[in-house]
Order: sequence, then structure tokens, then C-alpha cells
Amino acid sequence: MAHEIQAAVLGATGYSGFELTRILFRHPRLKPPLLLRRESDHGCVQLEDVYPQLAGQGSFPLEPFSWPKLQSAGVQVLFLATPHELSRELAPEALRRGLRVVDLSGAWRLKNVANRAVYGFRDADAQTAAHWDAQAVYGSPELHRAAIAAAQLVANPGCYATSIILALAPLAQAGWIDREHGVIADAKSGVSGAGKAPTSKTHFCEVADNLSAYSLLNHRHTGEILEQLGLEAAQVVFAPHLLPIPRGILSTLYVRLAQARTAEQVAALYRKFYCGSAWVRVFGTRVPQIQYSLHTNYCDLGFALAADGRRLVIVSCLDNLLKGAAGQAVQNLNVMCGWNEREGLQ
Amino acid sequence: MAHEIQAAVLGATGYSGFELTRILFRHPRLKPPLLLRRESDHGCVQLEDVYPQLAGQGSFPLEPFSWPKLQSAGVQVLFLATPHELSRELAPEALRRGLRVVDLSGAWRLKNVANRAVYGFRDADAQTAAHWDAQAVYGSPELHRAAIAAAQLVANPGCYATSIILALAPLAQAGWIDREHGVIADAKSGVSGAGKAPTSKTHFCEVADNLSAYSLLNHRHTGEILEQLGLEAAQVVFAPHLLPIPRGILSTLYVRLAQARTAEQVAALYRKFYCGSAWVRVFGTRVPQIQYSLHTNYCDLGFALAADGRRLVIVSCLDNLLKGAAGQAVQNLNVMCGWNEREGLQ
Amino acid sequence: MAHEIQAAVLGATGYSGFELTRILFRHPRLKPPLLLRRESDHGCVQLEDVYPQLAGQGSFPLEPFSWPKLQSAGVQVLFLATPHELSRELAPEALRRGLRVVDLSGAWRLKNVANRAVYGFRDADAQTAAHWDAQAVYGSPELHRAAIAAAQLVANPGCYATSIILALAPLAQAGWIDREHGVIADAKSGVSGAGKAPTSKTHFCEVADNLSAYSLLNHRHTGEILEQLGLEAAQVVFAPHLLPIPRGILSTLYVRLAQARTAEQVAALYRKFYCGSAWVRVFGTRVPQIQYSLHTNYCDLGFALAADGRRLVIVSCLDNLLKGAAGQAVQNLNVMCGWNEREGLQ
Amino acid sequence: MAHEIQAAVLGATGYSGFELTRILFRHPRLKPPLLLRRESDHGCVQLEDVYPQLAGQGSFPLEPFSWPKLQSAGVQVLFLATPHELSRELAPEALRRGLRVVDLSGAWRLKNVANRAVYGFRDADAQTAAHWDAQAVYGSPELHRAAIAAAQLVANPGCYATSIILALAPLAQAGWIDREHGVIADAKSGVSGAGKAPTSKTHFCEVADNLSAYSLLNHRHTGEILEQLGLEAAQVVFAPHLLPIPRGILSTLYVRLAQARTAEQVAALYRKFYCGSAWVRVFGTRVPQIQYSLHTNYCDLGFALAADGRRLVIVSCLDNLLKGAAGQAVQNLNVMCGWNEREGLQ
Repeated sequence: MAHEIQAAVLGATGYSGFELTRILFRHPRLKPPLLLRRESDHGCVQLEDVYPQLAGQGSFPLEPFSWPKLQSAGVQVLFLATPHELSRELAPEALRRGLRVVDLSGAWRLKNVANRAVYGFRDADAQTAAHWDAQAVYGSPELHRAAIAAAQLVANPGCYATSIILALAPLAQAGWIDREHGVIADAKSGVSGAGKAPTSKTHFCEVADNLSAYSLLNHRHTGEILEQLGLEAAQVVFAPHLLPIPRGILSTLYVRLAQARTAEQVAALYRKFYCGSAWVRVFGTRVPQIQYSLHTNYCDLGFALAADGRRLVIVSCLDNLLKGAAGQAVQNLNVMCGWNEREGLQ
Repeated sequence: MAHEIQAAVLGATGYSGFELTRILFRHPRLKPPLLLRRESDHGCVQLEDVYPQLAGQGSFPLEPFSWPKLQSAGVQVLFLATPHELSRELAPEALRRGLRVVDLSGAWRLKNVANRAVYGFRDADAQTAAHWDAQAVYGSPELHRAAIAAAQLVANPGCYATSIILALAPLAQAGWIDREHGVIADAKSGVSGAGKAPTSKTHFCEVADNLSAYSLLNHRHTGEILEQLGLEAAQVVFAPHLLPIPRGILSTLYVRLAQARTAEQVAALYRKFYCGSAWVRVFGTRVPQIQYSLHTNYCDLGFALAADGRRLVIVSCLDNLLKGAAGQAVQNLNVMCGWNEREGLQ
Repeated sequence: MAHEIQAAVLGATGYSGFELTRILFRHPRLKPPLLLRRESDHGCVQLEDVYPQLAGQGSFPLEPFSWPKLQSAGVQVLFLATPHELSRELAPEALRRGLRVVDLSGAWRLKNVANRAVYGFRDADAQTAAHWDAQAVYGSPELHRAAIAAAQLVANPGCYATSIILALAPLAQAGWIDREHGVIADAKSGVSGAGKAPTSKTHFCEVADNLSAYSLLNHRHTGEILEQLGLEAAQVVFAPHLLPIPRGILSTLYVRLAQARTAEQVAALYRKFYCGSAWVRVFGTRVPQIQYSLHTNYCDLGFALAADGRRLVIVSCLDNLLKGAAGQAVQNLNVMCGWNEREGLQ
Repeated sequence: MAHEIQAAVLGATGYSGFELTRILFRHPRLKPPLLLRRESDHGCVQLEDVYPQLAGQGSFPLEPFSWPKLQSAGVQVLFLATPHELSRELAPEALRRGLRVVDLSGAWRLKNVANRAVYGFRDADAQTAAHWDAQAVYGSPELHRAAIAAAQLVANPGCYATSIILALAPLAQAGWIDREHGVIADAKSGVSGAGKAPTSKTHFCEVADNLSAYSLLNHRHTGEILEQLGLEAAQVVFAPHLLPIPRGILSTLYVRLAQARTAEQVAALYRKFYCGSAWVRVFGTRVPQIQYSLHTNYCDLGFALAADGRRLVIVSCLDNLLKGAAGQAVQNLNVMCGWNEREGLQ
């Protein structure tokens, strides 16, 4: 099989960027990707300096980022594993230069201006930013396959958002949710979701033997959830928790069904919705655990339905660095290029 | 201060029983407690055989259980840290002999026959059992202080149930809960809650780097929650999860308030309700973490209220072996004996 | 590439057997392996019953073990991931039937009768057993490549033994070790090394927040270490420790060099020794950590040398389920079949 | 019992300082200690701001540090839980003002100028510093009880050093160690030993599921070990490792005995040496684990002796924040004041 595409990664030294890089190097359709340095990576000229586990697996030099460098390397797809401010700045220029962009930050995920407020974007060119806000496609292949295939800018979803949206989309689109009751998302994430920078919140002694809730009712991923599920802010309660594990998310979703259903009906709804989606596994009434999807690109879904056929609990698990970030980014690349969605991800 | 009371413990080798024993030995109002062996402890004649960390702290012999032994030792209060079947069998005889009993199992917690069905009790003497079912006092001192003081049989609450009931009781008693919406309890517990017996579910490799939901919508503690909060089964969704930590519970409760309130009003309600309760700490809008109450008898409560003043998230933390078991048992003893509730627990 | 070989696995439900099975299914030179049930697996007819994470990845039926079944399936290589007693019983019959066998237990690793005593083998046919004891090749490809290629019975090394032997073999073969001082191996392993059966030693609460030494000076892997390094029992101190992690081994080796060397000389010795060995990485004076080799087949080696050029500390890391078990078993298969040693392991 | 002594703590916000503060507040012979702020604590005016778990347990204000404040509060003993540079600066002035000082840093532990080099002290007044270097007593009560009782400046030992010195002192003082072979100390510590400041080395994701060796052959605690055991640098190999647990140290010591002994003789030597030492427990041939001494001031010792009666492995466990820091500091206070060494520590 020919190596068809030249990709580049900016931000390979972060947790998501590193996972992304590892997948791209193994991807059978890609030339070895170009790795680009951010200024905050200034000390790192080989990825192996930051990730010694790469020893013996080849050379992974990090080049200083520049537009001419991208051009001379023939880069066609640029992955931005950068803070949202930087993605907001770089993506428009990359797009102007004809690159396709997959952005892993929160910079381009939101259509609704009000939802974007939490990020406090300060765009130098508001008109161009607005253009790309409108053009960007939310990179959930299970929901937007066709649009992603045609997109120039793909906004890779948030990790929490992915776990929650995939768990609720079948119900939301079928109109099964009692919206008056709304939706409750109790989500639990491993620490890598907080990034590689050491803070008091990621200190081992503050996380181990602990569980903490944070950003209750005001987490930044809320906007994505609302927009993708077509819900109002008043219909969603989202409570993230920090787990004492390195990676993995389990979200527990609580929904009241608009009318009573059987477990078989619920299972059938999910199976039909995700029929043909390689990276969502419907477990039915046997609920998944975080371990099942760790180190894979799967989102695993299971549920329990109360005897009244109304109160439904859905459990959704994924690896926050894969289906929640780098894996889904590559899945989006596969869709953008018309390849099998499993390519490079098994 | 005189050592006034002779207590005995049956089941000191389990996790809760061991914590209980350690507290009772330090309790300034108690004579050294009598430790009694269950048949399943047959190999253990010194508690130090099972818990080598006791080395150098004295002698902790385990005597074979017998009624004459209890009598000759002058035991006044018997703590049962035993499986519920055994508590169901032993408590009536102990009570008949005039002992006061604090039972840490689920044997005597439920008033409603339907709720008891999950335990499948097979009482040899149904009439006596029914008598004590009626007489038993649910050992939540914050809710039933006066009754506990007079009780002969105290049914020490379940660990999950304690964390959930204390989080919701102020709202339930004030009538603030929109019962049509019901209550959602997403609870997460450390592994010691599953007991000391090794099973595939408590194997280190199955728990570490993992999170799993279990007993969704059918956990045995549900009955306690319903009865203590005065809710119907259809009004409660209870979803327990197993955390990769040895001890600690964090429960996240989701409630719709019957009418809009301010955060100050909510905080005031909790502060007033728990005024005078030494072992409940109201954190207000700064939510507690599991670490805060670990190795203490505190139940910590905090909350977040949505802008609409209706959607309320309460976070409740405690140590499942202390406030969730042994600590609360000693708190009950203190109430039963008219002592300060802090006695022996600091 | 043609799928050339039919392998079978007995014991796929254990931790090592499961890792082995996953690798064999992905191996480009193999037909889908035949999975065989032990009696202790009686309840399990699909591997997915025990490992739900296999969902959506195909069907993995477990067939009842029988010799005719092996024959009719055309099995050429049998992997035994079984207790050593069972391997001791089954391997001779498999070999008699012309199968090649890779045994992951301790059944066939030891040449010295005295060293075998710790296993207490009770062979039904002592003569045949002795024959195969002599014929079996210790499956350390870095040390016995040629013999493995020709072997009918390969005894896959112990996990601890692999980490220690690979760390010391270059020194031992070069005669650099001051044997009067002997060798000290302080080894630390994750819990999966203790197997999947739940015991009080693998209970989460006994392992988490803990570290314990065990089998001090009498661990069963000692015999392998002595035989492979050509050391006397009095020259080795081996102290295993149980780490609160699911997988990974770090062994710290302490050696006095027979004469003073420089760090460059030590590094050169290791680099030369492992030149051409794809699965050993020599880190030099930058010591490896457990994370570097986790989920890979690498054994990573690094060291520190005291200013006197005599006191040498070597750090050796590997994944106990891969290079320490299943990965090395497949590496042995590759050698036995004349394939690239990396095949199926990347 | 009268509250006799006024103590003060500088550095209560660090892990050791916080443990120290909690013990001092409970200590029956002490007035509530004065808590003093370092400049790096500038944002913290209540200890509860940093440690919310203190809620409901009283008020713990942090006062800005100043000498007049110490004087007006009548402080008699000053605990310095500060970086060694700051201890080096403050201790002489405190001593000049007549205070007794217990310093928890490495500032005053070493008598040998060469050993002090690793700290790179820059004393403003070299003569005074040299005076106090000579006067300071190494705060290991088991070794220097009488000198501590009379000391004005007590240098509280390092955590690793405590675990190693207590394990070897009986052998060293009895002349049982074969010094030609030297001593090997393979030590493993929880993360709190690295301090509260977040760094890439204490990031949860770098520590969890990992074990790493560091500071091989050049750790700063080596000087204490040499001086207290009367060993030469060439006779000690010290290799620290970072464990994925919050607290606890297990050190495994390897010694060749100068002549063959029985296990009974070894046990008797240790028992005699630590007879009367409340905080050292001799387990004999049943080796201790980290869990046994966690949250206590014990150092636990056990051993295994090879059949040749020469190769001895000693296992030493303690809680790095208690016997390895704050607990031992209070034990020193007890000795300094002529109190029972258990006071305040049970």
C-alpha cells in the first residue's frame, strides 16, 4: 500500500500529542509525520528526550515550527495538539495555505457564540475566525461522517464530551429523552486528561487514594454536549470527577425516558444507531468498565433500565487519550481521506 | 475517668471489625473489649495473626464465642461485625439475655418487609424476629439521636446509605426535593467496602487502573435510603461504582429543588440541620474530597447550585470503615451511653 | 504472507495466556490459534466470557482439550500456559506426538536436579521426564538462539529470572563479576505475576499503598538464575518484592566488578553483547523505569558505576506478562520458525 | 497534666510540617503551637486554606515569621520544617536567642565537611556555622538519647537514612558486618518524600503504574548513613527508588556477616539493641511491610538469613512523614524535655 499522505503534528510532547504521534508513525497510509516544536518545547529536539520509552524505535526529531517548513515538507494535513489559544491563531493561517487541519483543542468545536464565551477567545481577525467557526466540522465520525469527509477544518471533540455525546445521541435523536427531566452526566476521568504540566492538582499525593469533583455545573465541555445533543443548558447537569488512575473515562448518564421501554428496545436502538460504527461497542445490559477500552479507540456503552421502563442509566467508557483525543483524531483523518476508519488504530 | 462499660466484638478480623476494635481499645470510657471468634476465624487466636501491624501494642486474644463467656465477662454491649445471616441469628438471643446490641450488618436496618426481601432472611423464630425488626433503631445519630439513646438494638447503617442519607436528609425533611424528578445517587466506594474475602472482584489487577459500575438500580442499600428519606422506589436511582482506592466513599447526589433557592439558602439549611452534630461538616459551595475525611469519622458535605436555583448537586464524602461502619458504631455507643459523641473517635 | 503455522494455547484464561492469545491472533505468520480449555476453565466457553474487553473483535471459542482435537486441527506448536504440574504431565505426550512445545511454567527450565526440588515434581514416567529435562532448551533467545531454533521443547523463562539473567549475563560471560562478593538481586514485580486466582495476597487492600518483600532467599526462580549465569547458590541473594501496580518488573542488581572499569567500558560490554538482539535496549547510565517497557516486549537495561569503578548497580525493567512471559514465548516461536524475532510483537 | 512548653513551627504547609503540626496540637504536654509563615506561604493565612481537611477542628492561623513574634509568644522550642538553606540561616539566630531548635532539613546532620559538600551551604557567618555543626546532635533517639536530651540543636534525620541506620546500627555496633563486602541499601519510598511542590517527577501520570530508581550512588542521605554507622564511602551502595504510593519507605539491606550466625542470634542482637526503644519493632524472621507502620511512628525491622549464616537480608519499614520526619521530631522533643518518648505519638 502506498504511503499517500504527509501529516504534521504540532504539540507532540503533550500526552495526546504523543499518543497521536505514535499512531501516525504506525499508520499504513501515511508517510512518517513531521513533528513540530512549540516554543514551550524549546529544550526538546528529539521526542525521545521527553519520552525515553521511544528508545530503539527510530529517530523522532522535533523541527521548529514555521510555515515554509510545512510547505517544503509537503504537509497536507496538520494536527494541532496545542492550547486552544494557539489553535485559534494557527488554524486560520494553515487553512488559508490550503492545509486540512484536525485540531485537538477546544478552539473550533462550538457553533454557539454564547457557549464559546468560557474560552475567552481573542481573535486578531474576527471575521476570518467567524468564517471558520461556521465551517469547522465537529469531529465525531459517528455523528458527522459525511461532513468530516468533506471538511477542511475538523474540531476534534473533548474527551468528556465524546463519552457523553455517544452515550446519549441515540436517545436524543430518537426523541426518547424526557427533556423536562433533563440529562445528568456524572463523569470520572483519569489524570492524563488534565495534561502533562505539573500542578498541585496533578501531584501524585493529591490524586492517589482520593476522588474529587470539580468544575461542577461549569465545565468547558458543556457547550459541546448541548450543541451536539440539541439540549438547552437548563436540561443538562454535568459533574466531572478526577480519578486516581492515569487514563480512562467512565461517564454515568441518567435519563428519564419520555415513555416506558423495554431493555430490548433500548439495546436495539443503540445497536441500530451504531451499526457500521467500528469504534463504538454496545454492551447492552452488561455494563462496560474502564479497563475494557483502555489502550483502544473504542467507546463502550452499556445500560441498566429500571423496572418502570423509564429510569435509564447509561455507562460509557473510553480511553481519554485515544477515542477521547488522539485516536479519534486519526479516525477523523481516516474519514477525511476516505479510508477504513480502523486504519492505523488496531 | 472510670472505665465504665464492658463491650465485646464478634468479627474483629474483618476490615470493619478491626477498625472497630482499634477504636474500642482506645476509648476512654471502656474496659478493654472482649474479642470473640467466629467459626470462620478458627485459625486465628490472636488478632495480631491477621493484623501484624498490631505488634508491640499489647495482646489481642480472640476467644471462642459462647453465651456463658459473654456473661462471665460481664459484657453489656455486643458489637456484631458479622454477616447479616449470623446477626439475624445471634442478635435476638443477645437481646433476650439483656445485652445491648450494635449490629454492623444489614440484618436489622429495614422496617419495610418488601425492602428486606433482597436479604432473603430465614428466621428460625419469625415472631421474635418481627419483634426486633420493629424495635431496632436505625443507627444514624444525626437523625435518630433520642431513639438510639434508648435503644436496645441499634442497626448501624450501610456505608453508601450513610453518605447518601446524610446528604439528602436536610432537603427531604424540609420538603425541598421535587419528588416528581426524584433523586439520583451516583456513589463511588473504595474496595474495603467489599470486605476482606478475596474474590475476582477485589483482585488488585481487576481494580487498579479501572472504574466499574455495579448493582445498578438494585443495590441492597437502596431500602435504607428509601426508608430514611421517605422516598418511593420510583423516586430514587442509585448507582454504585468501585474505585481503585482502599477506602473512602464519595457520593454525588442530583436533585431538582421544588422551588428556586440561593446557594446561601441551601448552605443555611444544611448548617442548621447539622448544627450540634459533631461528625458532619458542611463545606458549602467548596466541595469536599475523599481525602478530607479519610481516617476520620466525619461525613463531609458540599454542593453546587445551578444558576436557575433548581438543579442542585451535592457531594458527600466519608471513610466507609469509620463513619460508614466502625466509627458510626462507636458514635452510636456514645449516644446509647449518654457520652459525648466525639468520645474515642478523635 | 502465507499463514504458515497452526498453534494452540492451553490456558488462555490466565493473565499470561490471555496476553499470549492476543499476540498469536495478531501474528502475521500464524493461522488463528486453537484455544483449549483446562478443567479449571469449565465454565468458560468463549474467552470473551472472562475478558469482556474482547467484545467486537471476533469469536474466541475455547475447545475442551483432547489429543485428537489437537491432531485434527493440525496443531504444530502447543503453548502451555498451565500450572507446572500440568505442564509436566502434558508436555511429554505432546512431544511424543511430534508437536513442538513452548511451556510457560517452571516445569522444564532446570537442568540441575537439586534446583528442581522446590517444585516437587511427581513424574509418572521418570525416565521420559528425565529425557525431556535434558532435551528442553531454556527459552532465552538472547542466550540460546541456536538451540531454540532447533528445539522441540522450549522452557520459557520466569519473569523475574528474565529480568535478572539479561542484566547479568554480559558480566557473567565476560568474567567481570567478583564471585567472592556474589550478586544481589533486589527485584520488584507488579501483581499480575502472582496470577489471576484471587488470594489474600492479591486482594486490592493488601497490595495498594503497600510494598512487601517475600520469598526472601528462597524464591523458585533462583535455580534458573544460578544455572543460566553459572553461579553457585552461595553467590546469589535474590529478594522479590510485590509492587502496588498491575504489571511490570524492575530488578536492581548489585555487583562488585573483579577489576575497575569505566562506565564507557561497561556500556560497551552490554552494547556488544546485545548487538543484534531486537528486544533488549541498553540505556547506559540513564536508567530505565518500569513505564518505558510496559506493554512491549523489551527488556531495558541501564546502570550506575561508583567512582571506584568496582561497585556496579544495574537496573533491569520489563513487562512481566510480555518479555517476562507471553512476549518472550512468541519471540521463541519466531526463533523456532526462523522468523524475524520482532514478528507479531510490535 | 500542665501544658508546659510553647513550641513554634516554621513550614507547616509542607507535608512534614503539616504532620508535625497535627501532632503538636494533640500533644498533651504542649500549649497550642505557634505556626509561622515562610515567604513562600504568602497566600496562606490559615492552615486550613492549604489543608481543607482541618475544617471543624479549630483555627490554625499562620503568623508572619519574625523574631519579636517568637519572643513575645514565649516560644521555647522552634521546629524548622524549611529548606536546608533557610534552616542554615535561621537556626544560628534562634540558638543565639536561647531557643532550642529541632531542624527537619539536612542542614545540620553532617559532621564531616566532605559529606556536607553535596548541600553547597553558603554560610554568611562560617565560624558560627562551624560551631553549630559541631554542637548539633543527630536526632536519632535510639542512638543518641542522652545527647539529644541535653542538645540545644537537634538535626532530625532524613527519612531514608532513618530506615537504613536503624536497620544496620545493631550489626555495625556489634562489629558483625563484613566491611570488605560492605553494605547495600535498596530503598523504596512513597512520593510525599519528594515534597509538596509539583514537578514532572511527582506528576501522577509519571509515578502511577511505575517504579523508578534515582540518585543511584549519589543520594544526599548517604553522608548520614556513613557517619552514623561508621562506614567508609566505598563500603556503602545506596539506591533509592520512587514507589507509586503516597507515603511509606521500605529499605532492603544486604550484608555479609563477618562470621556465621543463627537467625536466633541475629534476632537476639536486634531485640537487645532496641530493648527500651518504644518506636522500633523487631519482627524477627517475619518481615514487615509498609502498611504495618503507616500512620505510626514505628520503624519495623525483620530479616532473612541464608543457610550459610552469612548472607543477611534486613527489611526496614517506616512512614517517611512520621518516623522519617515529623514523628521522630516529636520523639526528639520528648527526649529533649525528659518526657516519655511515646507522648503525643499514639
